[in-house]
Amino acid sequence: MPAPDISAALQRALALAAQAIGLSDPNPRVGCVILAPDGRELGAGHTQAAGQAHAEVMALRDAAMRSHDVRGATAIVTLEPCSHHGRTPPCCDALIAAGIGRVVVAVEDPNPLVAGQGLTRLRAAGIAVELADTATADAARELNIGFFSRMQRGRPFVRLKSAISLDGRTALPDGRSQWITGEAARTDGHAWRRRAGAVLTGIGTVLADDPRLDVRLVPTDKQPLRLVLDPQGRLPADARILQQPGEARAIGPGRADLPALLAELGRQGINELHVEAGPTLSGAFLDAGLVDELLVYQAPMLIGEGRPLAALSPLAQLGDAPRWRLVEATPVGQDLRLRLRPT
Amino acid sequence: MPAPDISAALQRALALAAQAIGLSDPNPRVGCVILAPDGRELGAGHTQAAGQAHAEVMALRDAAMRSHDVRGATAIVTLEPCSHHGRTPPCCDALIAAGIGRVVVAVEDPNPLVAGQGLTRLRAAGIAVELADTATADAARELNIGFFSRMQRGRPFVRLKSAISLDGRTALPDGRSQWITGEAARTDGHAWRRRAGAVLTGIGTVLADDPRLDVRLVPTDKQPLRLVLDPQGRLPADARILQQPGEARAIGPGRADLPALLAELGRQGINELHVEAGPTLSGAFLDAGLVDELLVYQAPMLIGEGRPLAALSPLAQLGDAPRWRLVEATPVGQDLRLRLRPT
Repeated sequence: MPAPDISAALQRALALAAQAIGLSDPNPRVGCVILAPDGRELGAGHTQAAGQAHAEVMALRDAAMRSHDVRGATAIVTLEPCSHHGRTPPCCDALIAAGIGRVVVAVEDPNPLVAGQGLTRLRAAGIAVELADTATADAARELNIGFFSRMQRGRPFVRLKSAISLDGRTALPDGRSQWITGEAARTDGHAWRRRAGAVLTGIGTVLADDPRLDVRLVPTDKQPLRLVLDPQGRLPADARILQQPGEARAIGPGRADLPALLAELGRQGINELHVEAGPTLSGAFLDAGLVDELLVYQAPMLIGEGRPLAALSPLAQLGDAPRWRLVEATPVGQDLRLRLRPT
Repeated sequence: MPAPDISAALQRALALAAQAIGLSDPNPRVGCVILAPDGRELGAGHTQAAGQAHAEVMALRDAAMRSHDVRGATAIVTLEPCSHHGRTPPCCDALIAAGIGRVVVAVEDPNPLVAGQGLTRLRAAGIAVELADTATADAARELNIGFFSRMQRGRPFVRLKSAISLDGRTALPDGRSQWITGEAARTDGHAWRRRAGAVLTGIGTVLADDPRLDVRLVPTDKQPLRLVLDPQGRLPADARILQQPGEARAIGPGRADLPALLAELGRQGINELHVEAGPTLSGAFLDAGLVDELLVYQAPMLIGEGRPLAALSPLAQLGDAPRWRLVEATPVGQDLRLRLRPT
């Protein structure tokens, strides 16, 4: 009898979890696969919209629909099963009640309400519990980087997006910016927006460009909340950002305190915040050290005089500049997608 | 009896040819491998310094030293063997005299004095001649991109090197630039300098930074010629660029005409010109459309206000900006090496 291929099942569970992007927020993206002792897949699923079933329950339901007996089976889950009553009953209880014999977990839940209690509860019920290798744990954490941020730091993971030329310009001196990057990069940018619970911009960008800031170049189950920092109440009622499907909101009047804003967005369940703004707001986030990831589309062109990515405080010396770590450099169409994180 | 592995021999010949970088200029970098009918290697070699033996002769000598009989053997050469008397006798004659039975050539010689005549001459002598596949031909051409440029356009291949931040700055506003990129990128930059017949900079850079512009972080057989555009005769006699091993030269007095300068450097046998200059000279080369390759080391940092890569003429609209094609994006230490060519 062939043994279950746990490694392959973890990859499949991660792929299922990714299907919850743009769907499960503020809940984490989780995938679950249930394997028979001979390795056959009995059921699989991923987290649904908030208030609906989690991955484990979806997988158990899938197995039941297919009339499979899951007693003694192995459940592979990308995140530690929850042990508390939220909007749905605890997944641990569902796994125990179903008679699952073994649970493999990619990474422990950062939620202080779970934090190892799920694993403890499963073990107490006589279920064998195993943790995946480090690389799989990292991939599972990465998929929910915003959820981890909110649980561990009380604020969203902040991704600052920009489209620049090779010489770092986002627009001509008069602000014209259509188009520096190509269609493939713009579509890819929407896929990253889709990950976000909220998209944030400044009133200057709204008044200058009237952007929509919704997700439309890739399919999505829900639109991120759109936020405009508008200290002087200048947001026009007919701004396009207010006309799109999904919720849009001005923040103001009054100058926003960025750390306080992030804490508030954390309380509101925003896991990933996508900042797509002009040089002033981008500079404010960067100067405050509040950017967790730079997402930069770099076009293979030189503009010369033009607008900068960010209006930053002057450096006394080069050594004072914060250093970033290049996470990836990936061609997207004619452009290059760069992702960097603070060192 | 195993047949000779021509594909593997071509790769080995290309690797041998690469050993002629920093040695054979102004002659092309060529490698040659001689295989017995059963696939055994009988001899191998690459082009030596100008006036000394070419690759084919080196390989024949190698075979003779090892007392191998090359009659009926296959010679694999990365560039069409020369058929004219230059500083050395034609390689075609040497191959014919040695009784070589078959010649495989990666790419035809762009030199108008050779241009297919080498292949014709070999065929006339009863030698079977074959050309390699397109990918191998491209690799062979790439290795001698400057030689091809000089033969076909009468001017060097111009590579413009810069080290910039993610936001396109080469220095703080006051010119301080040490260091934006890391040690690995600087060493890599010397490896590219080493490919060049000449390194060119402007007097402004010499007066401001007093750079050496020699090849010292990687080993080399010869130093590139160092050139300073110095229209007003301001080059100090004690400038470090004049103190290093190898030749250095000021170009002036008088403002240099860049196309005429390139033609003159072509006549002087410069295959690859490495431009490492400030924004003014870099901008002049770019505005004139004379840059064949951008070699950019991009550091993972944001500088804000600072010096640009190039002082470019203003764009009337974004669509007017020349488009480049990204040839590679390769991490080098903490930095990213980008190479781009005109589309």
